[in-house]
Amino acid sequence: MSEPPWWGHDPWSIRTDERELDRLGATESILALANGHIGLRGTLDEGEPRHDPGTYLNGFFEERPLPHAEVAYGYPESGQTVVNVTDGKLIRAIIGDAPLDLRHGRVLEHERALDLRRGALRRRTVWRSPGGATVELRSERFVSLTRRTVAAIHYELTPLDRDVYVALQSDLLANEPVLSGPSAGIDPRDGAALGPVLRSELAVHRDRRAVLVHRTAASGQRVAAGMDHVVDLPDAADCSIEAGDDLARFTVAARLPTGTSLRLVKFLAYGWSSRRSAPALRDQVEGALATAALAGYDELAAEQAAFLARFWARADVELEGDLQLQQAVRFGLFHVLQAGARNEQRPIPAKGLTGPGYDGHAFWDTETYVLPVLTYTAPEAARDALRWRHSTLEQARRRAIELGQRGAAFPWRTIDGRECSGYWPAGTASFHVGADIADAVARHVAATGDDEFDAGCGTELLVETARLWASLGHHDGRTFRIDGVTGPDEYTAVVDDNIYTNLMAQRNLREAVAACARRPATAERLGVDTAELTAWGAAADAMAMPYDSQLGVHPQSEGFTQHAEWDFEGTPASHYPLLLHAPYFEIYRKQVVKQADLVLALYLRGDAFTPDAKARNFVYYEARTVRDSSLSACPQAIIAAEVGHLELARDYWAETALTDLSDVHGNAAGGVHLAALAGGWLVAVAGFGGMRDHGGRLTFAPRLAPGLSRLRFHLTHRSRLLRVTIEARWATYELLDGDELVCAHHGEPITVTGEPARWPIPAAPVPPPVRQPAGRAPRRHRPAG
Amino acid sequence: MSEPPWWGHDPWSIRTDERELDRLGATESILALANGHIGLRGTLDEGEPRHDPGTYLNGFFEERPLPHAEVAYGYPESGQTVVNVTDGKLIRAIIGDAPLDLRHGRVLEHERALDLRRGALRRRTVWRSPGGATVELRSERFVSLTRRTVAAIHYELTPLDRDVYVALQSDLLANEPVLSGPSAGIDPRDGAALGPVLRSELAVHRDRRAVLVHRTAASGQRVAAGMDHVVDLPDAADCSIEAGDDLARFTVAARLPTGTSLRLVKFLAYGWSSRRSAPALRDQVEGALATAALAGYDELAAEQAAFLARFWARADVELEGDLQLQQAVRFGLFHVLQAGARNEQRPIPAKGLTGPGYDGHAFWDTETYVLPVLTYTAPEAARDALRWRHSTLEQARRRAIELGQRGAAFPWRTIDGRECSGYWPAGTASFHVGADIADAVARHVAATGDDEFDAGCGTELLVETARLWASLGHHDGRTFRIDGVTGPDEYTAVVDDNIYTNLMAQRNLREAVAACARRPATAERLGVDTAELTAWGAAADAMAMPYDSQLGVHPQSEGFTQHAEWDFEGTPASHYPLLLHAPYFEIYRKQVVKQADLVLALYLRGDAFTPDAKARNFVYYEARTVRDSSLSACPQAIIAAEVGHLELARDYWAETALTDLSDVHGNAAGGVHLAALAGGWLVAVAGFGGMRDHGGRLTFAPRLAPGLSRLRFHLTHRSRLLRVTIEARWATYELLDGDELVCAHHGEPITVTGEPARWPIPAAPVPPPVRQPAGRAPRRHRPAG
Repeated sequence: MSEPPWWGHDPWSIRTDERELDRLGATESILALANGHIGLRGTLDEGEPRHDPGTYLNGFFEERPLPHAEVAYGYPESGQTVVNVTDGKLIRAIIGDAPLDLRHGRVLEHERALDLRRGALRRRTVWRSPGGATVELRSERFVSLTRRTVAAIHYELTPLDRDVYVALQSDLLANEPVLSGPSAGIDPRDGAALGPVLRSELAVHRDRRAVLVHRTAASGQRVAAGMDHVVDLPDAADCSIEAGDDLARFTVAARLPTGTSLRLVKFLAYGWSSRRSAPALRDQVEGALATAALAGYDELAAEQAAFLARFWARADVELEGDLQLQQAVRFGLFHVLQAGARNEQRPIPAKGLTGPGYDGHAFWDTETYVLPVLTYTAPEAARDALRWRHSTLEQARRRAIELGQRGAAFPWRTIDGRECSGYWPAGTASFHVGADIADAVARHVAATGDDEFDAGCGTELLVETARLWASLGHHDGRTFRIDGVTGPDEYTAVVDDNIYTNLMAQRNLREAVAACARRPATAERLGVDTAELTAWGAAADAMAMPYDSQLGVHPQSEGFTQHAEWDFEGTPASHYPLLLHAPYFEIYRKQVVKQADLVLALYLRGDAFTPDAKARNFVYYEARTVRDSSLSACPQAIIAAEVGHLELARDYWAETALTDLSDVHGNAAGGVHLAALAGGWLVAVAGFGGMRDHGGRLTFAPRLAPGLSRLRFHLTHRSRLLRVTIEARWATYELLDGDELVCAHHGEPITVTGEPARWPIPAAPVPPPVRQPAGRAPRRHRPAG
Repeated sequence: MSEPPWWGHDPWSIRTDERELDRLGATESILALANGHIGLRGTLDEGEPRHDPGTYLNGFFEERPLPHAEVAYGYPESGQTVVNVTDGKLIRAIIGDAPLDLRHGRVLEHERALDLRRGALRRRTVWRSPGGATVELRSERFVSLTRRTVAAIHYELTPLDRDVYVALQSDLLANEPVLSGPSAGIDPRDGAALGPVLRSELAVHRDRRAVLVHRTAASGQRVAAGMDHVVDLPDAADCSIEAGDDLARFTVAARLPTGTSLRLVKFLAYGWSSRRSAPALRDQVEGALATAALAGYDELAAEQAAFLARFWARADVELEGDLQLQQAVRFGLFHVLQAGARNEQRPIPAKGLTGPGYDGHAFWDTETYVLPVLTYTAPEAARDALRWRHSTLEQARRRAIELGQRGAAFPWRTIDGRECSGYWPAGTASFHVGADIADAVARHVAATGDDEFDAGCGTELLVETARLWASLGHHDGRTFRIDGVTGPDEYTAVVDDNIYTNLMAQRNLREAVAACARRPATAERLGVDTAELTAWGAAADAMAMPYDSQLGVHPQSEGFTQHAEWDFEGTPASHYPLLLHAPYFEIYRKQVVKQADLVLALYLRGDAFTPDAKARNFVYYEARTVRDSSLSACPQAIIAAEVGHLELARDYWAETALTDLSDVHGNAAGGVHLAALAGGWLVAVAGFGGMRDHGGRLTFAPRLAPGLSRLRFHLTHRSRLLRVTIEARWATYELLDGDELVCAHHGEPITVTGEPARWPIPAAPVPPPVRQPAGRAPRRHRPAG
């Protein structure tokens, strides 16, 4: 395997010359723009070549029946799939009689760059048509972070060596055909292929504006897409507009003298709803277009830059001595922001709004990987994501009843809050999702002190998830057991006493008790009485935690360490990911771990393990973890850093941060791996910064990553903006905003103020040697740049 | 629940007046006729009213895609469903202008009776047409046990009170529409609904004979159905024949004077193949019709009666003092014979050829429940069924490879040998099917001494199934473990060290070692070397057998006894079977047992448990077993008898024997429950007879069932026909045929000869009290008649 390509040696942008058009799928995901509300994949202006056009609206989905070879009680009967809605990104140029297309004519120069500070995708192409005319195309587009229903495109075409006739076609196109679908349909991570599911309801145009309204056949959701244009017309020019069922088109025809530019600004607006009428949505979209056009492109772009400047001031991670990783970590933060910024009580899907992978569903990793980053860097976004969970409580309560449980059973995968998982051992049984939500709630409340959220949503989420654990588990006389559930590791399913689940449930129960003490009125409204609180406490105190005293490690779940070992030596590289090459039954019954599970518990519930237990467990699970999931490298990096495997931690850091830029899992075309990208920040802060927040107390244990000369990060805790700078022997803490803050540095309480204070970094522990399964060691990352 | 209806007070026939036409579905199954090759459901001659017309040919199926909500490696992509082929049972009478139909006009007398000694279904109806003409209809039909492609119908119509014009229509009808399908499609035990899947290829007629040839769309199987007729035509009569794509019809029109009978004999023949051409199949069918017609109805009927007389002489079970149970046990034996008699290397499906339930698939229970009966009563049929398994070895080897294993992985459910299970935790993971086949092989070889079978098929089956266990299990340093598999109890899945599986695997491994010693040439051909034999022995010797020393019982599988108890008190009767009212995850994680699992091990591997362990385990599992499977009552009866719960054993005996006659599970309409019916013989012989054959050694421990004055059964062991008679205080053993036989009576070796020998029956042990889950005690059976 060759070194993965770089994306330009620039710490603030992701650049590509796109010489290899077969990587277009991943590039479209990487260059995608979104604001949590609207997402546009990074397709070329001209639409083709492309892998997947991708315009997504958060929460907009089509329903489809979920087929089951053998039916059973409680199986979800319908699934939800994110819809590629009306595509407004399209601007095609016809030069003379040749459409500008990178596959034809000759590409003399070409670059696209995702600008992480301006939140825009820029492009410059110099192209010679088959007829010999050379033109320069410059475009820029962004999805507004300040006006969530709006996107804008600036398009400029200049003939360089002769006068040309040019036609520009700016489209709204619904029901775009799929050119390249999922390969053979055997990868469960691909999204389902939907046909043309948008039914036209309205198509109107006036002046340079057009609006199309469509409705999905099964889910009955309605979408309005609108476009308006500003164009500097040269003398010899003409323009026209039309709108039909699935296509609205604004056409500019012009004769352009050499060196003269044809400039087009396109404003896009989207509105969608399952309740509002087609005219109401049209009105909304036309209103958004009017105000966007009034502000103008430059003003929108300036707002965008200002929004991002505020974000980076609170969130930036600076790496000195590793330009590639610096770029990757910022790229990851940018996508986390794009996914969460304006989600406003909609889910944050595993792929954000960058691709159709996993059907556009949200999973537990939003709470466990993405929200911690947002809580400490853009807390409003984390709060809104948790409010979305709260808004689905009724579905979760109904699901719990259907499953014979009390409290709330949140879905394994969903768009609108209903369970869409078609495979219960890795769906319904993965009840830890409830504890993960509770963990995110408790963290958010502790880190922000957001009383309104705590009283309005947080406590209720903690109570209803705690109720589920009290109902799922039972006292066997000795311990409180939680049987027959599935932990994070998807290569082991339906087991007893998964330690991750049990410890997260324990925290859930205790946080619920604490929240009820904090919010007695809410507790009363929810009917929590003393007996229930006592039961939660007793369950938490008696929580089972299996231990293999012979091996001196914790089995990931009851019996795990007695299972057969996987034959890693006999497994060729081409057999990974194992889930595509071996049956579940074979994978489940052996000691092979898809992704950090016990190791994730070592991080999130580090307070439940001794340092020695962490070191021994880490060695044991490293040897059995194949990282077939993009969720794995991040917690492995964090624990590697804690136990003293700093080089390994750095390699896993690079793996998680480069997940999409290096297409580590070969499926970046389906969308970016948001949780893995969040890992870029998490490893910086929790890994090398050693940040923990057990019980809401902020502590640090910083250590510089090998190869760096300096690592600096920012985070916000209870309205205090903290900056931590890690060098080889010292860590410096300072507050950039807010009152002084008490935290800890390698176990010692320290007070951080506006005055930078430097603390020595103790030597790292010398851990026992560690190795990964044959062929599954992470790529050795070489800091560069 | 009211007492179930009787089926006539006759020990040799099953009679019904069919007053309740809403029970027609179950009646059609119960009155079905088959010979293992062809099966005809017990529909009325006139075709309607009906539940399901049902003409089945063993091994004839259509393929359909198996949909999966989430795909994964190794899932079967297509399923097989038994096809209702061209219906030849139809003979309709039109009396004047009114079709004879039990729902119209007036039924004055009506009875149908399944004659267990003649192997025929007889019917007599006296019906008054809406126009007021009274006719008597008599018919008899049978599926020939001596000529396996042939069935015959004798039909006779007599006007009783006036001269009438009559038309008889005798049909071959393909693609019959389904009138009443599966209710709401949520019961996984129903078969899949197929559309009209037969494509016409040939339709010919000549004289009174017609043949239709069809082919299935997807599986490409071809079926020829032929009919020929003999009719005594009255003076004023006319007849005609026609044949179209899906319908061939022989019509007789006659004017019948009062008291004159119109007699029609209809011969049916079927041929099917996936390779032979339409003309070849037509030829085969016409040939069979010619020889059948040559023999004539009476001769065929006489052959049938003679065949059955031979069977009953070897197989009969006589109960003195309980006419209902007597009838039920014979009914069960009759269906077991019908399913197996002429299967000739085709599978014996769970429903025989009596209905579409379970898609017509064969499961493990054929080997575990049905074949032991056949081995001791009709050994040729058992041998042929095992030869069928052997004929699918190649598919099983390929499946093992696909699953990453060695040896042969036989399918959980199949028609042609390929896995058709759409739910792997209760399909693929139920590897015990291999050991069950091995057990049937070892039993058959020991009981018959069939060297040819042993060398040709038996040893290879034992070797390839043993290889699977060696590959599936692993030594953990202390024991040989088999992790992540599912035992017989379908309410517990994917567990470690299921004791039933482990003990059956242990027997499998040891029998394979023994077979290789017995058949060195076969062993060599299969590449078995000393190392492999040693490994099998070591695995068997170290086989894990979990024990809960605190409770003093064996957990059904590792950890089972620590799981939460099911809330039986809080489960209303309407929530059974639980699988239709609770999710798998909830069922799997609790101590609720669908069907005998550890208790089945107590029976089949009784040699691995002390009497005390049996008694304690029985009590423990009785309290947790809900019998949502028809496979459960039989082993519970057998162990209840062994540990001394004789009344309970008798109740379970009645439950298993009456499974279909009383429609215990409410789904007899889908076909009879063959394994449960086999239980009627098994409980007589292994339960109250105490027969065991561990290691091929025949032993008895008879005790009379409460309420009976005498119980007598027959079995054949190594060509010796043995008769055992059990009375209250004595058991009498005698050989009706063959050389003297050494066996055991209550632990004492005895020699059985042609001279009846009487042995005293010791007092039954006094077992600890036992109770079932709330509401799940078996119906108390009251011996009657």
